[in-house]
Amino acid sequence: MALPSGPTIRALRLFGSRGPRMTRRAPRVQHDFRSYATTLESNSKGLVLKVSEGGKSSPKRLSQLWLRDQTLWNASIASNPPEVSFDSVMAKGDVSGMADLTEKIRGYGICFVTNTPKTPEATNELLEAIGPIRNTHYGGFYDFVPDLAKADTAYTNLALAAHTDTTYFTEPAGLQAFHMLSHTSPPNKANDDSSLGGQSLLVDGFYAAYRLKKEYPEAYETLREVRLPWHASGNDGVAIAPDRAYPVIEASPYKFHRVRWNNDDRGVVPLNVNVDKWYSAARRWDSILRRKQNEYWFQLEPGRVLIFDNWRVLHGRSAFEGLRRICGGDINRDDFISRWKTSNFPRSEVIAANMQLK
Amino acid sequence: MALPSGPTIRALRLFGSRGPRMTRRAPRVQHDFRSYATTLESNSKGLVLKVSEGGKSSPKRLSQLWLRDQTLWNASIASNPPEVSFDSVMAKGDVSGMADLTEKIRGYGICFVTNTPKTPEATNELLEAIGPIRNTHYGGFYDFVPDLAKADTAYTNLALAAHTDTTYFTEPAGLQAFHMLSHTSPPNKANDDSSLGGQSLLVDGFYAAYRLKKEYPEAYETLREVRLPWHASGNDGVAIAPDRAYPVIEASPYKFHRVRWNNDDRGVVPLNVNVDKWYSAARRWDSILRRKQNEYWFQLEPGRVLIFDNWRVLHGRSAFEGLRRICGGDINRDDFISRWKTSNFPRSEVIAANMQLK
Repeated sequence: MALPSGPTIRALRLFGSRGPRMTRRAPRVQHDFRSYATTLESNSKGLVLKVSEGGKSSPKRLSQLWLRDQTLWNASIASNPPEVSFDSVMAKGDVSGMADLTEKIRGYGICFVTNTPKTPEATNELLEAIGPIRNTHYGGFYDFVPDLAKADTAYTNLALAAHTDTTYFTEPAGLQAFHMLSHTSPPNKANDDSSLGGQSLLVDGFYAAYRLKKEYPEAYETLREVRLPWHASGNDGVAIAPDRAYPVIEASPYKFHRVRWNNDDRGVVPLNVNVDKWYSAARRWDSILRRKQNEYWFQLEPGRVLIFDNWRVLHGRSAFEGLRRICGGDINRDDFISRWKTSNFPRSEVIAANMQLK
Repeated sequence: MALPSGPTIRALRLFGSRGPRMTRRAPRVQHDFRSYATTLESNSKGLVLKVSEGGKSSPKRLSQLWLRDQTLWNASIASNPPEVSFDSVMAKGDVSGMADLTEKIRGYGICFVTNTPKTPEATNELLEAIGPIRNTHYGGFYDFVPDLAKADTAYTNLALAAHTDTTYFTEPAGLQAFHMLSHTSPPNKANDDSSLGGQSLLVDGFYAAYRLKKEYPEAYETLREVRLPWHASGNDGVAIAPDRAYPVIEASPYKFHRVRWNNDDRGVVPLNVNVDKWYSAARRWDSILRRKQNEYWFQLEPGRVLIFDNWRVLHGRSAFEGLRRICGGDINRDDFISRWKTSNFPRSEVIAANMQLK
């Protein structure tokens, strides 16, 4: 794949609106980012919004190759979620499987890795093939069953609304991976996944931000402008907060950059802003995140690793009974983007783009 | 130590100007940060600049407890560098040594840990007592002798001008630690530290930024405003760049936040800014960093671990002969600040401050 050079076309696709879990109406796609010409096309993949950069764009923007195609999605992604096979990703001497995996995560914010050996060792190996596993106060690669001693809701059986993780770090986790190795029922119950609960939930935060911007532009601006304190205070001896306050939505006029959303980690809305306005905007955002047509529900399965971009995609789950064993880990966004570039583009072009030589 | 509440006095001290390596003239300390009243006092520690917050400060600022005293320094710090003993930091059931260590790193950007057992194991244990060791494409805790395969100047015998590390990460390394375990001479040389070279260099980037702001305010603003690409491209399969372009100096009108400075990692100055102006500002900045009176030179010694804040302090070294074995590791800024807060302040006050409850 060659890097785009000079003014180019980028596409923000709205994921296929004609799948079996079709939403009641096709997503509205009038694109309102400033200073870009937009055209709308219909093809076999659904509605495709093409954004061509106008005369106002600077050379700097054009060289940022990671601003390429992103596909926004809603519940209809369930009909055809992005996936690649473990063997293709791990193939020795052939980078095309890794290129496919990282390109899908870049484009959709999520990808499943199928036919993964149902062991923590294989999962660890898969993640390290993408990049170094991040080390935090919870450790690096993890393999756990519910544990209240961790003092974090992730380690319980509780239902969790859609949220992003580690909002309290200056740099939140980039990629996250979940591999459910087993789900065993309590002694008095049949071992039946559907009755034990624990369905997983994903929501495309960039699509939600796009909806918010369209439907309630003032609320969008409020969540983009008001910087909040975030913190992690559950664990003894640990009291983490970012280097400064950060807004819920980080975005420029021409792209979404990062979403932070976890009420359990949120500090107090600063008193020097219009607090009522912020809470009103947060309610609108929350209602978009909770719309049925935006929620992608599925069951985690042994052998099918979920990897998602925690700067973009929110995750949650329903409550569950019994014992789930989940392994996984985090990878910094920089290491992921590095692997995406080096597996998809010629090295000399990647370095030139990183240096902004062109 | 109780947290300050309400308007308070903060001090930016200029490290003792009367030590044996006294600079030719006392540092000029007229403080020019906006919206703060300043007073100048002379005491046994040198010249102390006190900055009292005026009526314009917001409640938000007051709750940021990590905006407390910072002591700016130059070469004269050599007469009395901050240090704590390994045993006090590692004392079981007594947090005062850790509080002392983290407070010194917070205040000066550097601290030595003396009487450390001369092993990688003890060094690792010391660092993990502060926070989780960061994992990068070079690994986590390291223990190395020069190795060109790493494709990074750090792993050579070359002289290195003062720089910060990992400028190419969205979030550069917070703390860095160096423990020199041994320095053995080449076969034909006496084992004499002073003739083998490898002196270490530290420069207080916040003091240099303070000088730049005083002497060349326009250059200061240029280095604060112009965002540059940074990149790591030396290693096969790795091509890291931050999430966006970052300036050399990140600062608000009332505090210095972070410095990025490494010519080997710097991309091309964007063509949509005044390039000549940027290079002129960079030359002024570089000349301040290279002033003899700002350079703190010393020899690393086995048993004496150096820990410094890579968001503030630049490091370098002279060329050396023979083989040096150095171990160490990086700790994220968030984890360090967490340890600083939890060891120095009551937990309830730390959490309230992190949440901005007060």
